[in-house]
Amino acid sequence: MEATTFVLFGATGDLARRKIYPALYNLFLDHKLNHSFSVIGLGRREVADEAFQAMVERSIRDFSRREVKDSASVRSFLKSFRYNVLDVGHTEDYKKLLQRVEQQEKRAGGSPNRMFYLSVGPEFFETIAFNIKQSGLGNAKGWKRLVIEKPFGHDLLSAQELNQKLSEAFTEEEIYRIDHYLGKPMVQELDVFQQSNPVLHALWNNRYISNVQITAAETVGVEERAGYYDHVGALRDMFQNHMLQLLMMLAIRLPKDSSPDEVRFKKKEVMEALESLDEGDVQFNVVRGQYTAGTIQGKPVQGYLSEPGIPAGSTNDTFIAARLQIDDPFWKDVPFYIRTGKRMKEKSTRIVIEFKEPLKQSSSAGENDIPNLLVFEISPNEGLTLQLKARDPQHKGKFKAMHIDFHTSSIEVPEAYENLIHDALHGDPSFFAHWNEVELSWKWVQPILNAFDKNTVPLHTYAAGSFGPAESDQLLAKKGHHWWLDTAEAANGVEEEENDVSLPDASNF
Amino acid sequence: MEATTFVLFGATGDLARRKIYPALYNLFLDHKLNHSFSVIGLGRREVADEAFQAMVERSIRDFSRREVKDSASVRSFLKSFRYNVLDVGHTEDYKKLLQRVEQQEKRAGGSPNRMFYLSVGPEFFETIAFNIKQSGLGNAKGWKRLVIEKPFGHDLLSAQELNQKLSEAFTEEEIYRIDHYLGKPMVQELDVFQQSNPVLHALWNNRYISNVQITAAETVGVEERAGYYDHVGALRDMFQNHMLQLLMMLAIRLPKDSSPDEVRFKKKEVMEALESLDEGDVQFNVVRGQYTAGTIQGKPVQGYLSEPGIPAGSTNDTFIAARLQIDDPFWKDVPFYIRTGKRMKEKSTRIVIEFKEPLKQSSSAGENDIPNLLVFEISPNEGLTLQLKARDPQHKGKFKAMHIDFHTSSIEVPEAYENLIHDALHGDPSFFAHWNEVELSWKWVQPILNAFDKNTVPLHTYAAGSFGPAESDQLLAKKGHHWWLDTAEAANGVEEEENDVSLPDASNF
Repeated sequence: MEATTFVLFGATGDLARRKIYPALYNLFLDHKLNHSFSVIGLGRREVADEAFQAMVERSIRDFSRREVKDSASVRSFLKSFRYNVLDVGHTEDYKKLLQRVEQQEKRAGGSPNRMFYLSVGPEFFETIAFNIKQSGLGNAKGWKRLVIEKPFGHDLLSAQELNQKLSEAFTEEEIYRIDHYLGKPMVQELDVFQQSNPVLHALWNNRYISNVQITAAETVGVEERAGYYDHVGALRDMFQNHMLQLLMMLAIRLPKDSSPDEVRFKKKEVMEALESLDEGDVQFNVVRGQYTAGTIQGKPVQGYLSEPGIPAGSTNDTFIAARLQIDDPFWKDVPFYIRTGKRMKEKSTRIVIEFKEPLKQSSSAGENDIPNLLVFEISPNEGLTLQLKARDPQHKGKFKAMHIDFHTSSIEVPEAYENLIHDALHGDPSFFAHWNEVELSWKWVQPILNAFDKNTVPLHTYAAGSFGPAESDQLLAKKGHHWWLDTAEAANGVEEEENDVSLPDASNF
Repeated sequence: MEATTFVLFGATGDLARRKIYPALYNLFLDHKLNHSFSVIGLGRREVADEAFQAMVERSIRDFSRREVKDSASVRSFLKSFRYNVLDVGHTEDYKKLLQRVEQQEKRAGGSPNRMFYLSVGPEFFETIAFNIKQSGLGNAKGWKRLVIEKPFGHDLLSAQELNQKLSEAFTEEEIYRIDHYLGKPMVQELDVFQQSNPVLHALWNNRYISNVQITAAETVGVEERAGYYDHVGALRDMFQNHMLQLLMMLAIRLPKDSSPDEVRFKKKEVMEALESLDEGDVQFNVVRGQYTAGTIQGKPVQGYLSEPGIPAGSTNDTFIAARLQIDDPFWKDVPFYIRTGKRMKEKSTRIVIEFKEPLKQSSSAGENDIPNLLVFEISPNEGLTLQLKARDPQHKGKFKAMHIDFHTSSIEVPEAYENLIHDALHGDPSFFAHWNEVELSWKWVQPILNAFDKNTVPLHTYAAGSFGPAESDQLLAKKGHHWWLDTAEAANGVEEEENDVSLPDASNF
C-alpha cells in the first residue's frame, strides 16, 4: 500500500468518534495501516491539531474494542492526525485543503493516494464531490476513492440523481458505499459459507430449505432523530439497504475463488431474480406497522405518536415485514421473510434457515415443533446455531431440541468499520454496495413506498415490546410457517444503538 | 409395571457397587421404580440384610451421579434390599432363594415378575441358568428375564455353546445381553439421529460421507486384570462387542417409528452387509499392536511385557485398528475405520464422520485440511461437534475451522446402567445385544482371531502415550485418509476406568 491520505469530512461527528477512530486505532494495532498513512480531519469549527488529537484519543479510549493501555503506541497513532477547518460550500477551503494534502504527500513521497470519507449528512454529498473535482483534490498521483455513508437517496429517482452527480467526480470503481451490515463478521461469512462447506452446499437449495427468515429487531424508539426518522421510516432506514443486502449475501451462489467483480455480479443476479411487486400486490406481501405504548424490559414506553417531534396522525412505518421470492433454480418456492422494527421485544439481528421435514406426515403430533434450523446470529452477539432433534435422555420416547452452537467473543473479532475501512484502503469492494445493488433495491422497494404514500395498504399497530403486529405472523401463517425464536429471552445488559450512529447535522457545517 | 423381584448374582461385587446400586438409586429418585420393586442380593459370603443395606448405602454415596442428601429417601430406597447367601453350584441354595422370592411375592401380590441379573464371571453363566430352571425359580407368575454381562463367549464356538445352554432356560426374548456402550446417552441418539433430522438424513450416505472413524482410546494399562486381559486382548475385550455395536448404531437406517424388533432386524442387516475378511485379508485390513514403555500425561509408564502378571513374549493385542466396508446402497465405498487400545495418549470414545470435499481439486493448498466433520463425543464427555470452514475474521483471505458444538452436563443425564436397567425392567430390548448381533460379530472377528493365533499378521509396537502404531495411520493413508482429532488435548482430571468394571472372580462363590 502506497502512502495514503485519509480525508475525513465530519471529523468531529458522532460516527467518526464512535466508529471510525476506534476502527483506525485497531487497524493500527494490527499493523494493517501503512506507516505513511495520515488523516486530515475536516469540520466547520476551528480546532487546533492538538485538540483534534485529544478528541481522537478520547474517542479510542471510550470506544475501542480493545482497552487502550500503552500510551507510547497511542502517541504514535495520534501523530498522523491533522485537522483543517472546512465549510463544505466554500471553494476556497478546498484549495487550502489541497495545499495541506500536497504538503503531506511531499513528505511521504511516492505516488500517494487519497481517500475521501464522507461522514456527513446526505445533503452534502453532491457539493463535496463537486468541489473535490473542481479544486484539483481529485487529481491524486496514486488512486482516489470516495467512501460514502448511507442513506443513498430517498427513493429510486433521488438515488439515481445522486449517483449521476457523484459519477461526475468519481467512477463506480472509486466509490465505496458503506452498508455497515456488510462489515459485520457473521455477514462476511455468509457468501462463501455454503460454497466452502460441503454439508451446507448439499443443503442450500429449495429441495431442503423450507423458508428463510431475516430479522433485525431493535428495542430503541426514535430517540433524538424523530424529525429525520418520521420522514424515512423502517422501509428506507433498514429494509432497502441492510435487509436486502442480508438477503443477497445469503442467497448468493458463488463459484469457488470468486473475484470481487464476480461477487457483485452474483449479487446483482439475486436482485434481478427477486420477483417484483406491483403496487396492488403490496397488501398481500408486506405488513406496515407502527408502535403504540407498551413495556420493554419491564419499563413502560410511549407510543410512536407520543414521541416528541412526531407529527399528529403520522402514518410512518416503524415496522415492516415482507415475503419475498427469488425466482432462480436454487430458491424457487422458498419464501424469504424479512422483518425489521423499532421498539420490539428484543434487540437481535439474525437469519434463520428452516429446513423441510420430508417425514412430517407420518410423525406423531408435537415432534414437528422441532424443525432443523440453522441460525446466524449477527448482532448484538455473533454466533451460529444448528437446531437438531434428539432423543430426550430424561424422558423415554420423547424428543427434544438439541442446539449445537458457536459463539465468538466480540473482543477478538474486528468490528464492522475495521473490516470496511481496511477493505476500502486496500481497494477491495466485495463488501460495499455496488450501484447496481442500490438501484435494484430501490426499484424493488419503490412500489411499496408508493403504496405507503397513497395509503392503499393498512397501517397496523403493535404494542412496544412485542414482535410486531399480528399481521406479521399471519403473513407467514398463510404458508404454514411461523417466525422462529420469538420466545427467546431479550439480550441482557446495556443496549447500544449501533444501527444508526447519528451523522453531524447541517449546523456543524 | 407389576411387582418385580430383582435377583442379583454378585451383589457384593465391584460392578454392583459402582454401577448397579447407583443406577437403581437414581431410577428410584426419578420415580421410575415400581413401589413393589425389591432386590435380593446374592453372594457366597454370609451377610446380614442390615450389613447389605449399609453396603448399598455406601455405594450410592460414593458413586451416584447425584449427591445423596436426603436420608429419608435413602432409607425408603434401602428398605427393598435383602440379602441371601448362595453358592452358585449348590442346588439347595436356589431352593432357599425360591422360598424367599415367593415370600416376597406373596407380600407384593399380583402376578409378580422376576429379573435375574448375572453380575458374575462368565464361567458361572451356564450353571446359574441351569439352576434357575431346575429349582423352579424360572416359573415366575409374571415374566422372567435374564440380564447378562459380557463377555459373551471367547470366540464364535464358545459363544454358540453358551447361547445354546442359556436358551435351555430362557428364550431369546427373555435374555438381555448388556453392552453398556449401548446405554450411553450419545450412543442412544445414534440410531434415530439421521432419521429424525432432515439435514442429516440428506447427508447420511456415500454421496456425501468420505469415511467414518470410531475410536475408543484408553490411557490405562491392564491394571489388576493382567491374567484375564492377556487371555483376551483388545479384539475380544472391546472390538467384537462395543466397537461393532457402535458401527451398527451409526450405520443403521431406521424407518420412522421403528419397533424394537425392527431395530434389531436392521442391526442384523448391517452386520450381514459387512464385507467379511478371509484370514489372508487380515494383514491388509487389520493392525495389531502392543504398547511399550512410554509417557502418559507426564508420567512414565512401563510396557505391556513388563506389567506384573504378563508372560514373557506375550503376543496379546492391546491395540487394534481395522478398516471395514459395508456393502449396502448407503455405505458402499465408505470405509469405516475402527481403533481401540490401552495406554493411548488420551481417554476418549468418539465417532468422527468425515464428509467429502467435492471441490477439492480446484482449491488452494492448505484449505483442504479443514474438512467438514461431525463428531460424536461418547465418553468421558458427551457432545456433538460440527466442524465447518469459515473465513478467518482476523486474517483476510484465510479460512479457519469453526466448531459448533453441544455438550451435556453429565449430572443431568442418566448413566448407561440407569438406561439399561430401566429398559430391561420395562421389557424394551432395543439397546441390548441380540444373539444375532453377537453371533455375527464373532463370525466377523473369527478370521482375525485365527490370524492372530497363528501369528500370520505382524504384532506392531507403539509407545505408551501415543495414538497407536504407525501402521494404524498407514491403514488410512492407503485411501488418502487420516485419523482426525489426534492432536486433541488429553482430557484432564482423574481418570476412572469405566470400560471394564471388574466382575467378582470365582473366589467369591
